[in-house]
This record gives sequence, structure tokens and C-alpha cells, in this order.
Amino acid sequence: MTDTRTETDSMGEMDVPADRLWGAQTQRSKENFRIGEERMPRELIHALGQVKRAAAVANRKLGVLDRTIADAIEQAARRIAKGELDEEFPLSVWQTGSGTQTNMNANEVIANLANRSLGGEVGGKSPVHPNDHVNKSQSSNDTIPTAVHVAAVAGLKTMLLPALGSMLTELEAKASDWNAIVKIGRTHTQDAVPLTLGQEFSAYARQLRAGIERIDQVLPGLLELAQGGTAVGTGLNAPADFGRKVAEELAAETGWPFTCAPNRFEALAGQDGLVFAHGALNTLAASLYKIANDIRLLGSGPRAGLGELSLPANEPGSSIMPGKVNPTQVEALTQVCAQVFGNHATVTFAGSQGQFELNAYRPVVAYNFLQSVRLLADACRSFTENLLKGLEPNRDNIASGVENSLMLVTALAPEIGYDKAADIAKRAHQDGTTLKAAALASGWVSETDYDRIVRPQDMIDPGS
Amino acid sequence: MTDTRTETDSMGEMDVPADRLWGAQTQRSKENFRIGEERMPRELIHALGQVKRAAAVANRKLGVLDRTIADAIEQAARRIAKGELDEEFPLSVWQTGSGTQTNMNANEVIANLANRSLGGEVGGKSPVHPNDHVNKSQSSNDTIPTAVHVAAVAGLKTMLLPALGSMLTELEAKASDWNAIVKIGRTHTQDAVPLTLGQEFSAYARQLRAGIERIDQVLPGLLELAQGGTAVGTGLNAPADFGRKVAEELAAETGWPFTCAPNRFEALAGQDGLVFAHGALNTLAASLYKIANDIRLLGSGPRAGLGELSLPANEPGSSIMPGKVNPTQVEALTQVCAQVFGNHATVTFAGSQGQFELNAYRPVVAYNFLQSVRLLADACRSFTENLLKGLEPNRDNIASGVENSLMLVTALAPEIGYDKAADIAKRAHQDGTTLKAAALASGWVSETDYDRIVRPQDMIDPGS
Amino acid sequence: MTDTRTETDSMGEMDVPADRLWGAQTQRSKENFRIGEERMPRELIHALGQVKRAAAVANRKLGVLDRTIADAIEQAARRIAKGELDEEFPLSVWQTGSGTQTNMNANEVIANLANRSLGGEVGGKSPVHPNDHVNKSQSSNDTIPTAVHVAAVAGLKTMLLPALGSMLTELEAKASDWNAIVKIGRTHTQDAVPLTLGQEFSAYARQLRAGIERIDQVLPGLLELAQGGTAVGTGLNAPADFGRKVAEELAAETGWPFTCAPNRFEALAGQDGLVFAHGALNTLAASLYKIANDIRLLGSGPRAGLGELSLPANEPGSSIMPGKVNPTQVEALTQVCAQVFGNHATVTFAGSQGQFELNAYRPVVAYNFLQSVRLLADACRSFTENLLKGLEPNRDNIASGVENSLMLVTALAPEIGYDKAADIAKRAHQDGTTLKAAALASGWVSETDYDRIVRPQDMIDPGS
Amino acid sequence: MTDTRTETDSMGEMDVPADRLWGAQTQRSKENFRIGEERMPRELIHALGQVKRAAAVANRKLGVLDRTIADAIEQAARRIAKGELDEEFPLSVWQTGSGTQTNMNANEVIANLANRSLGGEVGGKSPVHPNDHVNKSQSSNDTIPTAVHVAAVAGLKTMLLPALGSMLTELEAKASDWNAIVKIGRTHTQDAVPLTLGQEFSAYARQLRAGIERIDQVLPGLLELAQGGTAVGTGLNAPADFGRKVAEELAAETGWPFTCAPNRFEALAGQDGLVFAHGALNTLAASLYKIANDIRLLGSGPRAGLGELSLPANEPGSSIMPGKVNPTQVEALTQVCAQVFGNHATVTFAGSQGQFELNAYRPVVAYNFLQSVRLLADACRSFTENLLKGLEPNRDNIASGVENSLMLVTALAPEIGYDKAADIAKRAHQDGTTLKAAALASGWVSETDYDRIVRPQDMIDPGS
Repeated sequence: MTDTRTETDSMGEMDVPADRLWGAQTQRSKENFRIGEERMPRELIHALGQVKRAAAVANRKLGVLDRTIADAIEQAARRIAKGELDEEFPLSVWQTGSGTQTNMNANEVIANLANRSLGGEVGGKSPVHPNDHVNKSQSSNDTIPTAVHVAAVAGLKTMLLPALGSMLTELEAKASDWNAIVKIGRTHTQDAVPLTLGQEFSAYARQLRAGIERIDQVLPGLLELAQGGTAVGTGLNAPADFGRKVAEELAAETGWPFTCAPNRFEALAGQDGLVFAHGALNTLAASLYKIANDIRLLGSGPRAGLGELSLPANEPGSSIMPGKVNPTQVEALTQVCAQVFGNHATVTFAGSQGQFELNAYRPVVAYNFLQSVRLLADACRSFTENLLKGLEPNRDNIASGVENSLMLVTALAPEIGYDKAADIAKRAHQDGTTLKAAALASGWVSETDYDRIVRPQDMIDPGS
Repeated sequence: MTDTRTETDSMGEMDVPADRLWGAQTQRSKENFRIGEERMPRELIHALGQVKRAAAVANRKLGVLDRTIADAIEQAARRIAKGELDEEFPLSVWQTGSGTQTNMNANEVIANLANRSLGGEVGGKSPVHPNDHVNKSQSSNDTIPTAVHVAAVAGLKTMLLPALGSMLTELEAKASDWNAIVKIGRTHTQDAVPLTLGQEFSAYARQLRAGIERIDQVLPGLLELAQGGTAVGTGLNAPADFGRKVAEELAAETGWPFTCAPNRFEALAGQDGLVFAHGALNTLAASLYKIANDIRLLGSGPRAGLGELSLPANEPGSSIMPGKVNPTQVEALTQVCAQVFGNHATVTFAGSQGQFELNAYRPVVAYNFLQSVRLLADACRSFTENLLKGLEPNRDNIASGVENSLMLVTALAPEIGYDKAADIAKRAHQDGTTLKAAALASGWVSETDYDRIVRPQDMIDPGS
Repeated sequence: MTDTRTETDSMGEMDVPADRLWGAQTQRSKENFRIGEERMPRELIHALGQVKRAAAVANRKLGVLDRTIADAIEQAARRIAKGELDEEFPLSVWQTGSGTQTNMNANEVIANLANRSLGGEVGGKSPVHPNDHVNKSQSSNDTIPTAVHVAAVAGLKTMLLPALGSMLTELEAKASDWNAIVKIGRTHTQDAVPLTLGQEFSAYARQLRAGIERIDQVLPGLLELAQGGTAVGTGLNAPADFGRKVAEELAAETGWPFTCAPNRFEALAGQDGLVFAHGALNTLAASLYKIANDIRLLGSGPRAGLGELSLPANEPGSSIMPGKVNPTQVEALTQVCAQVFGNHATVTFAGSQGQFELNAYRPVVAYNFLQSVRLLADACRSFTENLLKGLEPNRDNIASGVENSLMLVTALAPEIGYDKAADIAKRAHQDGTTLKAAALASGWVSETDYDRIVRPQDMIDPGS
Repeated sequence: MTDTRTETDSMGEMDVPADRLWGAQTQRSKENFRIGEERMPRELIHALGQVKRAAAVANRKLGVLDRTIADAIEQAARRIAKGELDEEFPLSVWQTGSGTQTNMNANEVIANLANRSLGGEVGGKSPVHPNDHVNKSQSSNDTIPTAVHVAAVAGLKTMLLPALGSMLTELEAKASDWNAIVKIGRTHTQDAVPLTLGQEFSAYARQLRAGIERIDQVLPGLLELAQGGTAVGTGLNAPADFGRKVAEELAAETGWPFTCAPNRFEALAGQDGLVFAHGALNTLAASLYKIANDIRLLGSGPRAGLGELSLPANEPGSSIMPGKVNPTQVEALTQVCAQVFGNHATVTFAGSQGQFELNAYRPVVAYNFLQSVRLLADACRSFTENLLKGLEPNRDNIASGVENSLMLVTALAPEIGYDKAADIAKRAHQDGTTLKAAALASGWVSETDYDRIVRPQDMIDPGS
């Protein structure tokens, strides 16, 4: 049994653990929503701290909040933003759809801290009241969406984009380093005309670069903040300039150009900016899945696979098969992609289900969005460090794949026509001979011409 | 310009093409919903014909419909059921969510046909009125869900299950025929211990058999019919026994044991039976995807792939690479699977969005469900006929895969321990030697023991 | 029995209906893929005609195609682009994943037409050969992705964006016309503080405007064309400048700034541009769902619903309940949204499943993408014409909603504090009195102050 | 800096925290997969403890494991099963797709505990070796799927089904208690013919009962265990009867009838049983979404909503609007449903992506499946306790809804025909009069007849 103190809210009294800073509403929510193990994402709590600080600054500057109170709020909020008070935010993701109790959780913790610093009593709501002062000029309906956007931008800017940047660097290095390694191309998983291993990796690099550009494209929608709309978008009980001031303050603090949403009614009633932005993550996951799966297949073997790449052996691969090495980083990354695809379905569904002046699916969208960001960032970094950097081409296997290929016949087609070329390839396949043998046997091409035309190294950059 | 005649409904007059049998409401819907090219599925129209016929029989037997009128309705409805009047059903999938206008389309066509046969006038609504007689004891709200269930059962029973049965027969034949072909196993796409090609195909056969069983499991929910609930589930304006009689009549006609839904309020307000049943199709698609993708990869090559299977060459594979053959049936089937996964998302979403006494997402669910059934049936049949039946093992490639394998070392582990066995495999890999050479070099196993223990053919059925 | 003629391809002879212009490969595909009823989208066929024409021009300008032959190809291709030859494209969506047979379908039809115009024989492949001339410098692997992008851009530019523009105009008109109608706001579906009906519609307008902007954002990725990569991206058998010339020619013809993809290996191996672009459609569907569902609920009634809006009565709503009117346009549109959500899952899945140098899920992605475009365009136009334009506010119902509201108490909070204000609202709710009665009874506010502060019309634009 | 000890595996030495019981492989995985915050689900770890215990028993009974060692393993494994060692399982969900390192984590912890209890040294692998003894007769490839199935069955049986049972009891009580409360029905959200509030809730109860039955239907597939297949399904290195013995032992311990999978190749290569079972959860989520959303809308108000139900006021609903009460339990539950829909997409995707002898998406499927189970169970329990039990009908609002309804006209249709009845309803609507006034004014029905026919209480169970 823990010691408790009594806190109150507009519904009455609640017992709260004596050593905790939250108040009655947080406690109510904690007891009413015993659902799952997922807590409101830490990134969101930190962003909420930033927003509360910026709001206090704005209230102070607009003259509606006493400087002493504002200062105390700002200091407490800054501690939340820094992650020093994570333990004071115990609420579940699976709560009210506006995140109201998490907003109140912040209001209560800040009020208690501020009151303590100003000589008041924890739980006393004086001189700083969680609603009347900490939440001043705000509603959960604008503050929570604002915090989600701030957290999303922070996650993309500080976690995901840097991880993608490192991965891109590594992929581009491979594209460059391996640009002289001619290998067999594969379309429909079947042998096709050659390209270089570097060209193959240049496609991966391009996918990733485009993925980074897509994130840059969706960021503007996330830089628009709902703050200032208060309860339904009209801004009732907030000074006219409040939202703009908060955005400015957040921009000054973070260096990211936050602005007011052009229509606050929309900013409260929808989550379209997040749905669209998650579409960039969804596309990124599709790209990463393809890249990782290719590397898995190109690295298959060691003896009965494609065997073009050697993956680093990071851990014993099997509990029963000694000496086995598996593409485990591929598996971690592709599982993350599978998760992101599902998260996208959740975010889309939730984004479509707003009703009237509110979309009441804020926590589930924040949870999924921020999970996607974190997982993609971590998995890309892990993949880069533990797989890409140690990846090596198996030059012998690669060379023999090119030599045996029947699809080099393609180079003959412009000379002898598609139909005759097809005939040569088929004969070589049926008879198990080399392409050259079949070509010469056909009588349609001389050895000199064959040797001049069918040169894999000339097929990889015909335009140059 | 086509000739028209005037039809009326409770909203007034409408011009209808003179050579068409539909009436004012159908025409209104046709003009108000010019959306897309997707027409209400033919399978659903045919089922609606069956339901209208059964309803007329039930009304007649319950004494609420004059025999002459009932007979005329039955004859007209039977023609719809047979598909003779498909051209009279021009309405879009993207219409009212109850399918009301498609129900009225049937009522109008039947009334016009019946009136014509009884000496009345097309468009005259006399002696047979589309609402008062053809729709008697019914509402769109129970009739359309009933027809969707009938169409779904018909599709599963007459299209999908037979196609799956043929595919299963073929897969089981392969499992049996190829049970002596020892091949390398692959886990994580990496070489693993051996199994037989027959065992590999037995897994596919088991997936399919389980898929068939799952369809059998979900059918009971589709055999429950909403009929008799009329507008909201109470059965207002229908005789108490009406729903039961209709179900009996449909069961007698089709041979499938249709019954009344245990709770008609639920049957109108939800589509859970269809959501769950589509889950069986979704699982089937996951199974088929794995089977098809495996065959694609095992058939990769011909020279730089895994090359364990030869797929039939059905068409020239490339417009530029002569002689190329691609796994086109695999690609058709896996694209169908991709479609079914998306259809499942649509069906699930739509199934969750009922409001109060009605789920107003009937046409979209019917369209997706029946498309999934049709595509899976057709694609499985095509895959069986055009790929499976002509599939051949490449015995040489398969044998060399087993011979070179390092993972045969697993059989040594119970004798010398996991750690020493791992050491042997790694040395063979590093030195590029055979497993046997590395094993003997290690000194941990004698040649006699090695030859006794490391026998692929003994590893494939160790329990026997 | 139809008359046939014999056509040949590299696999041998095929019987083709005598009155058709397609050749052996098309016929093979038609017989090998009897799957479903979905044909390759007409928009894609038309775009393929445009691409084939542009390719002939480029080949001619680059000096690799004789002018006579090029002219004949261009003329035939233009007819395909115009939709004059739709019946000559019978192939199923569910075919090879590269769309090779549809590319060959175009090559064969064009060759036959060109040969006929040049005095050759249909089926004779001379003087114009489907592969060697019509497909010159091309592969299905670059031509089909190019055509899909061209079709996607055309669909967005000529169908969807105009439809969204009309809808936006109508929504903005409502936002403006109804800006003086004060109504109750609703958050969590519960009564909240007031806003105007115009403000509510301004949120819808903003959602739509942002949706249009998102489409503009994703268009650049679709303007990048794969053409020039030929089989695997190297451009083997194509002149170095071929892709650029084709893009220029298409740009000149359409007015849209098509360019070469920056990395053709990526353009063949992935479909990321389409996945991301469909993410904009997915977001648009989420927006439309919310807008439509709100209008449905605001129009609920006529007597036992929210009753704030009157929807036009376009058709009799019920086959059993006389006089009923339903929000049928809402239902059509929300069903379309459900379809788009599922299409997005399909497109995403397919986009992730490329292998090596090719993503072999082209037809299924094209089919879903173009279906989404068409359905969204048509449904928005239908919704605008048949619902939005006839939408009317029910001013009496709206006014009484505001008058009775308890949440007007929010305006008192800055004066008397949150806790006291909450107490007043609760008392009014419990006692069933007006807010004013409860406020005065509390003694915390005078009648003068109440009348000054609690003015709904002042709450809707507090900043002004 | 923490104290460490040295552990070894087949790849060499690793430093492990001195106070931890895991070994080198766990440590390797911990360092190589720093991805996200999600740890392998506790339910899965507990099930793995059960499986390891059962395996030791089976090995002992089959005479391949020394009794002393077996006993020590059993004791250690039982502690894991009881949840006493959760802290010893630090690995991420985002690891190798077979869960190999989590299997090794269990092997290492058990070996260390067993060695300690037998006088050996932690890290010494003697007398008990993690691979040779703890993992005896097993591979990760059969053990992890077995543990996932055991955890899934446990979650469904002990968490979800009881929670659904309680919810069903409460819904059925409402259906019964409120069966005399006649209310307006709503279809298409528009006023329709009446039913009782009890009938409306009987639909919810039926949805839930069917949901329970569906879970019962999918359980058999989860009771089939992969154990005994070892590395690829052949059972190499395991006694023939091993899998059967383990299933028997697990059945004896849990009381649930576990059996061997009929085809172990399939059991390793696929996850179809889990995909199908999650389909039942997906359907359940669709049902719950509809139920919860209905209750939200029926409880909308208090003054400008439908107002038919009063929801318990559990917490202050708004940080800015004093006295507001929101349907927060609805929002938590519907957010959970949104999550389950996304989890279903992830599970389906992952289930389709097996390659050859292994589906390497075990952890992500386990994580999503078990999260869905836990969230649905908790959210249903919370919804039942905190909302359903306190739900009350607003009889006055309900009664006035029925009285004013125009759709009671439906009862007149069988007497005067659909068209005349429609005319009456429309006039009443246009003139704003009562239905009765319009009916009498029409002259088509006498007051006596009207009063006899139009009786809401007779419309709710016309068949009785």
C-alpha cells in the first residue's frame, strides 16, 4: 500500500500516490482505462512539454498571464520537454480520443510543480490552477494535435532523416564501388540482360533518395499547428494572436518553421496531414522491403542459392543447424516494414472517422505514427551498420552467372531480328549448350560478328 | 436518340428507353449515379432473381399473394436467376448503400414482365405492382442481404471450392510423385537440412486443404438469411413465417441448407458473416501467395537461378529479350492475391461502418466479396491447368544442391555436439571445401562414422 | 464458330479471329489467362497508344526507323490513343506482371494496321514487324510503366482535379453563404461551444483544397518516365537519347512536362511513385469520408435526427417505407472511399513486392490506381451535382440547438473559473433547466454579466 | 559501468552483465537489434517456458535426456512459465524472423539456472548445454511457432473469451430489460419504422455471441503445434514421437487439447492458422466498432443530439468546456478496433511472405496477434464495467421520437398501397404536420382505421 494524498477536480476527490505529481483527472483516467501496456509515447509527452512552455510564453506576452505564474509554468514545462518527468505520465494510449486526460496530466503536473516552486501546496491548485492558468487559452482539442505535429516533425527530423541519410550514403558508396562488376540482370526472377552490381545498387539508392524527398514533401503539412482554435476552432477564450505566438515560440525554440494552420476548424476535425505524411512512411517501407528482400535473395546460399552477395555473420543462425548464418538484419527490417504497412491502415482508418468538430482518434494515430518513425529509423540504422557496411560481392559467382546467360542473345536481335534471336536462345536452352555454340550453329551469325556484338560489358551502358 | 416510354414512381414520371423493362426508379438511379464502370455483379442479380422467386412462392403459400400474380412473378424471377435478363440491370455498384434501387430494378423488371404476360401494360403497374406485389413482405433491407448471402454461397460452392479441389489434387499428386527426390531445404532463404521435393509440395497441399476447410467453416454464417426482417428487423408487413418459408424454398431450389438468421436486427445492421468469410479468402490468398512465390523462385533461372523446377513455357516472355520464358501464371495469381488483400481491407472497413438498424455498405461489400471469389477461382484454375500440370523437377540441379550442402553437418551435432559441428561447417565454408573434407580434417569424426551419419536420404524421414 | 486466320510468334502459330487485328501473342494470353472480367483499363490502352506514337517519332528522329514505317506506326498508334480501337484490346488485368502481352497487343495491332495501310498483309509482319519495328528501342519493362504514368497523370489532370475543383467551389460557396448561421458545435459527438455553419463547411473546403494540393505534390513523381531503360534499365538496344525524346514528344502532345526518370533501374524495379501518389488519393478518401459522413449525420431525421441540413430527395428511399428519403449520394461516395482504402492496400502490397530488376505487379497497380481516380472523380462530381448543390440549412432546428446548449458556459470560465462554471453546467443538466437559470441560481454571476458574456454570436469569432 | 562475465557461443566470446542469466547469443542479439522499444511479448515468453518444460519431459520420457538434467531444465522452465524471470528476456520484437535468439535466450537462461542448481557454473554450459540439452530434439523453427500457438490459445481462452462473456451478459441483460421501450428505428441514419431498445441491443448481443463462436471456430487451428518438425519439418535429430509427447504434455498441463500439426512442413513454412484466427479478431473489431459507435451516437447530446441514452460520466470531458461529459470508453474501444484493423493488415502481409521451408515473420505476427488479444480483452472489460453497466435510457426523448415519426406510415401501405402511403408521408413532411393529420386529410383512410393500424407497439413484433 502506497501513501496517498487527495486531489480534486470538477467531479470531486481522488486519492493519488503521495509521491506523484499528477492530479485527480490523471488518476481517474488511470483507473478507468486499464487497457493494454502501451503508454502515451514519450516523444509526444516531450512535445507537449514544449507546447505548454510556448503557451505560457504566449499568454505572458499577450498580457493574460501573470509573469510569476508564467515563469513557473515555463520552468516546469521545460523539464517535461527534456524528458525528466516521464514517470509522471502514466496514462494509456487507449483513453479518450482527444487526449484530454493527457493534456490534463501535463496541466496537473505543471501546476503542482509550479505551486511547489511558488510556495503553494501540491494538490492545492493555488496560485497555479491546472485549467485556469496552465491550460489558459487552450483546449485539449488544439493542444494535443499541436503536440502530435511537433512530435512528428521532431521524429522525422532528428531520428528518421538522419538514419536514412546514413543508409543512403552507404548505398551510394556501393553503387559507386561496384560499378564495374558486370552481373546478370533478372526480370520476373528469370535471367535477363546484364547490368552492373553498382547499377543495381543505384536503384536502391534512388529509392531511398526519393523516400527522403517524399518526407521533405510531407513536412509542411505537419508544420501547421492547430493551436489557437481552442474547443471547436473558433478560438473562444484565447486571445486572437495566441496561436501565432505559440507557433513562433516553438519555431524559435526548435528551429523548425512552425506556423498556424490556415483553417483551425479543419485542424481540429481532421488528421489529414498525418495520414498523408504516413503515406510517405508507407512508401518508404515499400522501398525498404524491396531493397532488403533483394539483398536477402542475392545473398542466398551459401551453396544452393544465388550467392552473389556475402552478408556479415552477426550471430549463430540456428539453434539446431551448426554454422548457419542468416540474413537477420533483413528480417528485422522487413518485419518493421510489415508493421508500418499495418500502422498505415490504422492511421488511415482513424483519419477517416472524425465526427463534426473533432477527430477523436488522436492517441491511436500518434502512437502508430511515432512508432513507425522510430522503428524505421532504428531498423535502417541497424541495417546500415550491421549489414550494409559489411556486405561483399562474390565475384566468382557473379561472373559465372553472366557467362552462362542465354539472354545475351538480346544484343543480336537488332542485327538478325527478334524471331531468329529467339530461336537461337531456345536451342541453346534445349540442348544445354552455350549461347555462342547455338548462335554459330544457326548459321545466322558469324563468329566475328558474335564476338563483336555479344559483349556483356558493352551492354551495361549502351548509351555511352 | 432512343424511343422512350413514361414510367412513374412515388416521385413522379421518368422517361425510360422503350425497349427496356426497367422502370422509373431504376432510371432515376441510373441518372443519379454516373459513377465508374462497375455494374452490380451478375452473380448478385441472379441470386436476387432466386430470392424474388422464393418470396413469391412464400407469399403464395402464406396466402397473401394471389396465385395468378405469384405465378407470373415466379416465371419472371426465374428468368433473372438464369441470367437471361442481365441487360435489364444497368445500375452501378456505387449507389445507395442498401442496394434499394437494385431491389427496385428487380421489382420493376419482374412487374413489367408479369404484367405483359398477364395482359397488362409495360409501365402500367397493373395487375402487378412492383412494390405492392413483387416486393410484398420484403424490404430492400432484408432482400439485398439475403441475395448477397445466396450469391456468396453460390460463388464459393460452384466456383471456388471446385477450383481449389482441382488444384489440391494436382498438388497432392506432386507431393506423392516427387517424394523420392531429395533436395536441399532452405530456411531464411539459406541452405538448410534436406527434405524431399514431395515433402515441400505436401506443405502446399496442406495449406490448400486447410484453406478449403476454412471455407467450409465460414459457410454456415452465410447460410443464415436476413429475409423476414423487412425494414428494421421487426418483420413489419411480412407474415410471421415469411422468412422461414423463403429460406426453405431457396434451400429446396439450390440444395444448400439456408436458414433464417437467428437475429434479424443483427442481420440487417451488420455484415459480420461476410467479413469473417472474407477472412477465409484472405487467408487463402496468403497461402496461395506463398505457394506461387516459392514456385517462382524454385523455377528461377534457367542458368543463374535456383533452377530446381521447370515451368511450362506458355508464351514469349519478353518483347525485347528473345527466347525468354517467365512465370506468368505465378504473376497472375500473385496479383490476384494482392487484390484480395485489398478487397479484405475494403470489406472490413465497410463491415465496421453500420449505423443503427442498417449497414449501408451492401453493394461495395458484395462487389468485393464476389470479385475475390471469382478471381481466386479463375486464377487457381488457370494456375493448375497452365502451370502446375506442366511443372517438372530439374533433377540434376536438385541433386547437386544436396551434395554441396554444408548443413548436412546438422546430423553430426547429436554425436559431437553443436559447437564442434558448427566449427566444421564454418571451416568448410571458409576454405571452400566439402563438408566431408572439413569434418575429417577436424579429427572429431572418422570417415566411417561420417559416411554412416551424414546421409541425406536418411535425414528426410528420421522417424521412420 | 468464327472465321480465323493464322498468326505466328516466336512460339509458333495461333488461330486468331479473322475480324480482329491482334496477333498470336495476344491470342495466347487471352487463352492462358481466363481470369475474372476485368480488362486492362481503357485509360491505360489509350496512354499506350500515345507512348507507341511518341516512340515511333523518337525512333524516326533518331534515324533508327524508316520514315514510311514510322508514319504508319504513328497513325495507327494515334487511333489507339483516341480510343477508336478499344475492342482490339481484350486482355485481362490478371496476366503477366510486366504487362508484356498488353505491350505486344499494341505492337500487334499497330503492325497489322500499318501493314494494311502499307499494302502488306494482316498477320504478315511485313513490312512492319511488331517487335522489330513497333517495339523498336523499347521493352515492355519500360513501355508499360511509362504508359501507366501517362494514364495516371491524365486521369488526375483531366478527371479528378476538375471534379475536385467543382466540389471545392461549391463547398466554399456554402462556407461563405452560411457564415452567419450560428449553430452548436459538437466534439466527441457531444454538444460543445458554437460556431457557424459556414465555419463548419470551411473545414470541409480546406480539407478538399489541401487534397488538391497533395495531388499537385505527388504529380512530379508521375511525370518521370521509365522509357529508355528497355529490359533492365541499361537501355540496351535503344539509342542513348531515346527516352528523352519520347518524354519530350509526350510533353509536346499533352502539355504536361514529362521527363526521363533520374534512375531507370529504379523506374523498372519499383512503383514507388504510384504508391506515394495513391497515398494522396487515400488521404483524399479519408477527407471525403469525413465530409460525407458529417453531412449524413447533420441531415439525419427528418424528425428524430440532428436535422440541421436538408438533403435533396433524388429518389424514393425505401421499397417498403413510403416517403422515405435517404442520403444516397453520401452512401455512394463513402462506398467509393471504402474501395479506395482497399485499393491503397493492394497498391502498397504490390509496390513492395518487386524482385531484382522488375516489379512484376504492373497491371494490378494500374487497375487499382486508375479505378481510384475514376471513382473519386465520378463520385465527387455526382455528390456535388446531386447533393451539395441542393443542400439547405434547417434554420429553426439549428437555432434551437444553440439556445438550449449548456456548453455556452465555457464563456463564463475566464470570469468565474473552470470549476464554478462546471458546477453551473452540471446543475442545469441535472435539473433540466436553462443554463441561465442555473447560472443565476448559483449566485456566481449577475444577470447583467450573464447577458453580456454568454452571447453565442460573440463566441464564433472571438478574435475579431 | 556494470560488472560483466564472459559467455561464449559458436561465434566466440561475449561480455554479459554479471547479474543476468542470459548468455552470449542473447547478448549478441541485444546489441545487434537496437530497434524500437517493443520487447518480445511476455505472454510468448511464458508460453516458451511451458514448451521448454514439456520438451524436457518428452526428452526424458523418450530416453534421450538424463533425468537429472531433465529435472533441472523442467524446474527452470517452469519459473519462466510463471513469469518469474521476465527481466531475463530483454530481446526486441525486431530481430531474426524465426525468433531464434529468443529461443536461445530461453535455452541460455535455463541452462544457466540448471547448471547453478546442479553445481555447475553460470556461463559454463556444463553439465547442461543450451543447445545440446535444453534445445534437444528442437529447433527454433518448430519451438517458436509452438510457443506462439500456445500463447495465442492462452490469450484467447484466459483473457479475451472471459471479457467477451461478461460483455455479452451485460448486453443480453439490456436486451431483456429494455424490451418494452418502443423507439424509432433508423436506417441510412434516417427515421424508419419502430423497434424496441431491447431489440436494438439484441443485435449487439448477437454480434458478440457470434464473435465468441468465431473464436471457438478458429481455435482448433491454433491447437495444432509445429513441435517435432525441427529445422525444416522432417524432424531431423528428434525422436519420432517427440512432437506428440510435447503436445500431450502441454495438453495435460493446460487442459487445452493440443495436438501435432498434421503437416509439419506447412506448420514451419506458414502462419495461416494465425492469419485466419486473427480474421476472427478482425471481425470482432468490426462488430465492436459498430456497437460502440451506435452507443456514442444514441448518447449524443445532451441537448442537441439524439439523446436516447445517458452514458455514465466518468471524468471531466474537456479542459476548456466545464461540465462536459464525453463517451470516452467508446473512444478507447474504437481506437482499439482501429489498431486491430491495422494489426490484421500486418499479420496478413507477414503471413503471405514465407519463403521455402520457413516463414521468417514470427515475432511480428506474435506481437500483433497478442497485442490484439490483450487490447480487445482489456477494452471490452473496461467498456463493460465503465460504460455498459451504467448506461440508461432517456425514456422521454425516446418516446417523443416515436410519436413524431412519419415512417409509421409504412403500416398503412398494405392497406392503401405504397404510392398513396408515400404521398401522405410527403405531405406531412412538407406541411410539418403529424402523420395522422396528413392521413386523414388525404381521405384515403378513416380515423378509426388509422388508430387501429398505426400503432407503434404493434409494429415491433408483428409476427406474434
